[in-house]
Amino acid sequence: MSGVWGEFLKLSIFGESHGKCIGIVINGLPAGLELDLHHIQKELGRRAPGKSQLATARQEDDAFEIVSGYLNNRTTGAPLSVLIWNKDQHSRDYEEIKDIMRPGHADFTARNKFAGFNDYRGGGHFSGRLTAPLVLAGAIGKQILSQKGIVIGSHILRIGNIEDTRFNPVNADPEKLLAMSDKPFPVISEGQGQLMQEHILQAKMEQDSVGGIVEAAIVGLPAGIGSPFFDSVESKLAHLLFSIPAVKGVEFGTGFAVSGMRGSEANDEFTLGNGEVRTMTNHCGGIQGGITNGMPLIFRTAFKPTPSIARGQRTVDIVRMEEVEIHIQGRHDPCIVPRAVPVVEAVAAIALLDMIIEKDGSSWKI
Amino acid sequence: MSGVWGEFLKLSIFGESHGKCIGIVINGLPAGLELDLHHIQKELGRRAPGKSQLATARQEDDAFEIVSGYLNNRTTGAPLSVLIWNKDQHSRDYEEIKDIMRPGHADFTARNKFAGFNDYRGGGHFSGRLTAPLVLAGAIGKQILSQKGIVIGSHILRIGNIEDTRFNPVNADPEKLLAMSDKPFPVISEGQGQLMQEHILQAKMEQDSVGGIVEAAIVGLPAGIGSPFFDSVESKLAHLLFSIPAVKGVEFGTGFAVSGMRGSEANDEFTLGNGEVRTMTNHCGGIQGGITNGMPLIFRTAFKPTPSIARGQRTVDIVRMEEVEIHIQGRHDPCIVPRAVPVVEAVAAIALLDMIIEKDGSSWKI
Amino acid sequence: MSGVWGEFLKLSIFGESHGKCIGIVINGLPAGLELDLHHIQKELGRRAPGKSQLATARQEDDAFEIVSGYLNNRTTGAPLSVLIWNKDQHSRDYEEIKDIMRPGHADFTARNKFAGFNDYRGGGHFSGRLTAPLVLAGAIGKQILSQKGIVIGSHILRIGNIEDTRFNPVNADPEKLLAMSDKPFPVISEGQGQLMQEHILQAKMEQDSVGGIVEAAIVGLPAGIGSPFFDSVESKLAHLLFSIPAVKGVEFGTGFAVSGMRGSEANDEFTLGNGEVRTMTNHCGGIQGGITNGMPLIFRTAFKPTPSIARGQRTVDIVRMEEVEIHIQGRHDPCIVPRAVPVVEAVAAIALLDMIIEKDGSSWKI
Amino acid sequence: MSGVWGEFLKLSIFGESHGKCIGIVINGLPAGLELDLHHIQKELGRRAPGKSQLATARQEDDAFEIVSGYLNNRTTGAPLSVLIWNKDQHSRDYEEIKDIMRPGHADFTARNKFAGFNDYRGGGHFSGRLTAPLVLAGAIGKQILSQKGIVIGSHILRIGNIEDTRFNPVNADPEKLLAMSDKPFPVISEGQGQLMQEHILQAKMEQDSVGGIVEAAIVGLPAGIGSPFFDSVESKLAHLLFSIPAVKGVEFGTGFAVSGMRGSEANDEFTLGNGEVRTMTNHCGGIQGGITNGMPLIFRTAFKPTPSIARGQRTVDIVRMEEVEIHIQGRHDPCIVPRAVPVVEAVAAIALLDMIIEKDGSSWKI
Repeated sequence: MSGVWGEFLKLSIFGESHGKCIGIVINGLPAGLELDLHHIQKELGRRAPGKSQLATARQEDDAFEIVSGYLNNRTTGAPLSVLIWNKDQHSRDYEEIKDIMRPGHADFTARNKFAGFNDYRGGGHFSGRLTAPLVLAGAIGKQILSQKGIVIGSHILRIGNIEDTRFNPVNADPEKLLAMSDKPFPVISEGQGQLMQEHILQAKMEQDSVGGIVEAAIVGLPAGIGSPFFDSVESKLAHLLFSIPAVKGVEFGTGFAVSGMRGSEANDEFTLGNGEVRTMTNHCGGIQGGITNGMPLIFRTAFKPTPSIARGQRTVDIVRMEEVEIHIQGRHDPCIVPRAVPVVEAVAAIALLDMIIEKDGSSWKI
Repeated sequence: MSGVWGEFLKLSIFGESHGKCIGIVINGLPAGLELDLHHIQKELGRRAPGKSQLATARQEDDAFEIVSGYLNNRTTGAPLSVLIWNKDQHSRDYEEIKDIMRPGHADFTARNKFAGFNDYRGGGHFSGRLTAPLVLAGAIGKQILSQKGIVIGSHILRIGNIEDTRFNPVNADPEKLLAMSDKPFPVISEGQGQLMQEHILQAKMEQDSVGGIVEAAIVGLPAGIGSPFFDSVESKLAHLLFSIPAVKGVEFGTGFAVSGMRGSEANDEFTLGNGEVRTMTNHCGGIQGGITNGMPLIFRTAFKPTPSIARGQRTVDIVRMEEVEIHIQGRHDPCIVPRAVPVVEAVAAIALLDMIIEKDGSSWKI
Repeated sequence: MSGVWGEFLKLSIFGESHGKCIGIVINGLPAGLELDLHHIQKELGRRAPGKSQLATARQEDDAFEIVSGYLNNRTTGAPLSVLIWNKDQHSRDYEEIKDIMRPGHADFTARNKFAGFNDYRGGGHFSGRLTAPLVLAGAIGKQILSQKGIVIGSHILRIGNIEDTRFNPVNADPEKLLAMSDKPFPVISEGQGQLMQEHILQAKMEQDSVGGIVEAAIVGLPAGIGSPFFDSVESKLAHLLFSIPAVKGVEFGTGFAVSGMRGSEANDEFTLGNGEVRTMTNHCGGIQGGITNGMPLIFRTAFKPTPSIARGQRTVDIVRMEEVEIHIQGRHDPCIVPRAVPVVEAVAAIALLDMIIEKDGSSWKI
Repeated sequence: MSGVWGEFLKLSIFGESHGKCIGIVINGLPAGLELDLHHIQKELGRRAPGKSQLATARQEDDAFEIVSGYLNNRTTGAPLSVLIWNKDQHSRDYEEIKDIMRPGHADFTARNKFAGFNDYRGGGHFSGRLTAPLVLAGAIGKQILSQKGIVIGSHILRIGNIEDTRFNPVNADPEKLLAMSDKPFPVISEGQGQLMQEHILQAKMEQDSVGGIVEAAIVGLPAGIGSPFFDSVESKLAHLLFSIPAVKGVEFGTGFAVSGMRGSEANDEFTLGNGEVRTMTNHCGGIQGGITNGMPLIFRTAFKPTPSIARGQRTVDIVRMEEVEIHIQGRHDPCIVPRAVPVVEAVAAIALLDMIIEKDGSSWKI
């Protein structure tokens, strides 16, 4: 396996939930970039647990330490490495159940892949905690994109059967997109948001968990980013989105629903507005032939419910090879979706930055 | 842009719809593999147009010519290169409309990406015709997988609002999966299939087109293939699936629907059967933590309707910068989905073979 | 194995000496480039055999056919694929000796790597003939570099013990460098060149072969191309140079000899000339810390003698496992070096273009 | 730029000479490997400064800290990350001369590449200190190779004009190779070694430095490792060797000298010994067609003299754009070669391990 991703912007992630630290090495950033450390911390904070009843009570402040590639408050062009030290681990929780395969977790598959030598404590390297370095890289990516006028925003589109209003795919407002990132529970319709939160707390009370869908929009992208086939915007984005633990579906534009339409309805007709070519609808989600067309890039990501639930579940003890019942202890999120929102945005920023560097080169001015 | 994909199995595709030929170079195949050329041709035939009223009337027999890496009916270990020569081109159809951006096509984005130098004839390199080399590589991949007891099958799950029965995610039958590939219109319920075909012909009569969803199942995979994060089974598969033109959504297992479930319902509980660890349900689609668990791998791929329709559509002439109406001439598929079925299977075979080579090395015996 | 090279400019080569064709797919070229086909053919001609007594009498005109990525005399931005069809093969020469390992050839190692399935005819994929596609890609690379004021030239520095004058490392003249490519036997001192040619013919008469050294100089490079460590100019260039069959040594600047110097002598002191930073000497060959410094890039490549010689040699029959004597029939080069000169230049052009695209991006104007 | 290398074994290095730490992330190691931490520290010790008059007086104990991928004394299969914290920095030494380009250093080229934002203290990311992580990865590589019966050894072949005896290319003794790594100044002939050391001390006394050549031999390699062309053993090894700061030449087998031979002399004739195919000579250095032939792999690496010397040197102040004289203060190695020996061995181990994983896969047993 490899924790390395990217062609033009290259990331290398590492670490385990209960190890010394987690971290990331980012290759290919332009030199001379002044990082907004406050913004990075804020983005990490959006992902961090322990802030509300909706999330795990574990306290992880996710303070980060830049250890290379940064001098006098600017990137040097050399690999930028960042560490996030682990704290507040209850490793003992896992010792007793290390041979008992938790349903919905990677315990069984990791054991097969790594011949039983994988770090089993808290999911080890498979932990959702590894998304913190991605959020960090994404925060840097967002900062660069922002300087180019590109804005990313997302909201919780669905929890259980409760749906938020969708983004306007033709005319997404950058201000409103940005505002989403300040909300602890980002939704467009606060009423629906209230119902979603109640739904989560209800599941929590019942020792259960729920999943949901995140919808993201990116505006300000120029036409011409991406490629046909293997380096398409969809391919690169979906590759990273499916790297996020618990993601089981990704769709662009009208997505699965477009497959039920007629061509005459699904095709986005072109028009001229202020001398610019635009489309009247945006079923394609801002991407045609794998390349951006200048319209908002829209996609949705489906998350399964948190697999760690306190309820009894049937499973097997892999050493004794017998069926057992498991009651997962510990502090777990009844719903991972609110904390996943900044992760979705982060990988989108990373994928787009990679494609922009492909186009503009590594020595571009900011 | 790059037409190269893969880490352990490396593909390089090239060609244009109306150029001299299209082709592929496959790197990393084991030496000594006797190819079943008849099977390759059969797979290409499944994708080829001109066979029924449901598809374009263009005649492309897609005869292939192996030009390197093959001696005395066996792979040599050197790059295997295959050409498919183009015939039956009506390039003139495109000359007149080359400045008029076809809605739903890549004309506008390609023009932006390649500064207007892209081959505009029949979509050029963006054409769905480029999936023929993928089918070819996939046929080779299937042959190798088959020798390892791995079987891939797929069917048309939905056309318009007409749905076929789903595969049994826990107990997909390899024989039935294989049988699907012999059907010209692969569905489980022939009755629903009949309705789907009528729906397509209706759209065709109305100078329109329809989209649909393909569901695939892969059985016989051992547990332990894939990796967490960037090299997850979902990431690699989705990367290639979204490389297929017209794909707008991909989901694994229960997919988007799992996001509406409770954890107690979505978690696949483990059980022992015949001394083997299995799951009782298969909402995860055979993948946990990015790695196969030995259960059937299930995924669904959504295709938008064919963008080329004869109906009048509003668009712009990019040179004169004025709004115009376009009536697309030529012979086009009213629905691409039936021809897309073998493409979906092919990229799945390619992705899995890459991950199996990662595990077993390049010098494995067949 | 993989015939794919490159990060920003990606090449995929394929083919065998006695197969249908050899070829290359070039990914990452800018769109809109008008290729000088005459120049490409001229470069291929420099490498082609059959032109003098110094080389093999095989006739290979190496006519090339562009099959994709090129429209209306310009690159489209899509993968550029080129085929060179094989002719004039005496495959029968190899049938008899296919189990007898030719000394100095890859017969034995290829057999081990590919379990005996490698194409044994004329070296198969290991043949020096595979350098023709590299020369072709290099010719395109040179054309782009030339438009940026970068000139590559090289000469035969040594054959046997006969040495040519070296390039002036501080002040290499672009005109003189370019003039080298017009010479059938490129040397600075024609007298030494005459002696070298006599030395080669003498070896040929004695059914033997000789090796030699090629020296190359590249002028007009801006400072700042390349990277420290893994992507250093030396690493990328040496990687490709050692890909050329028969290369056994590569050195930059003063090379091995600099290891015998004192620091006070080897350090290239800086000076100002016309407001430009230059070095007074150029022992580093124009590269410091893996990055160009704006001075001429100088390197030398050592070629072993052609392994195919008519003289009797001791070897083994790998099937019968017995020692035998071999007399290699066929038409072989008594010295590969004159034909290797354009190959050295070609891979240098390819490596530099890759690093320039890294810096400037794929959408740069020409 | 990217600090990432490798296809099957993937390394990511980071850090600066005067930053917080340097480090490495190693991807693709098999799970379950028990590391010999004492051996790793010993290898780091061979590279570390401060141990004799021949080297800089800087004290760097290079203690390493594994922060991920390692549990209960075994690799987990997840990325293995290791940090080496920096100490004993005299950063102030560099503040005054940051605008003055040190001859022979990367100051000028780094400034051009990174628009002046590079870390200038002690060479920053360009520092030879970054070879410590490579030695660490190489120590792990050596441990794995050793379990497969593969042994790497090297010695100082030349300092100034003083030459050591060469390794026997046909019959290198694994015991003697291993013994080399225990010597503080590894040479075969102790008498020549004495002269070399005197030569270095003489240069030091004269405020100067010297270069030299390292020769390495690797025995126990099976035939069939490597590939033709881009993934040849020479290409992969040379790529990494030229990544080492100060390397200006690499040659395999008889190297540059083989270019002066006749084919009848340079060809390594095959023979049978104990039922095994061997060559009688080994001018090719154990590699034919880019693939190992089972004979000892032999190569030589040329290092330039340490560029930091106390003597006055002419250079330029890049800000004031005027010519100045520089006297480099600080504690520098009069000769880097003794400390470079383990680095050469390390990158060789890394390159070979990558190629062995390609052949055998990632899930091989140890």
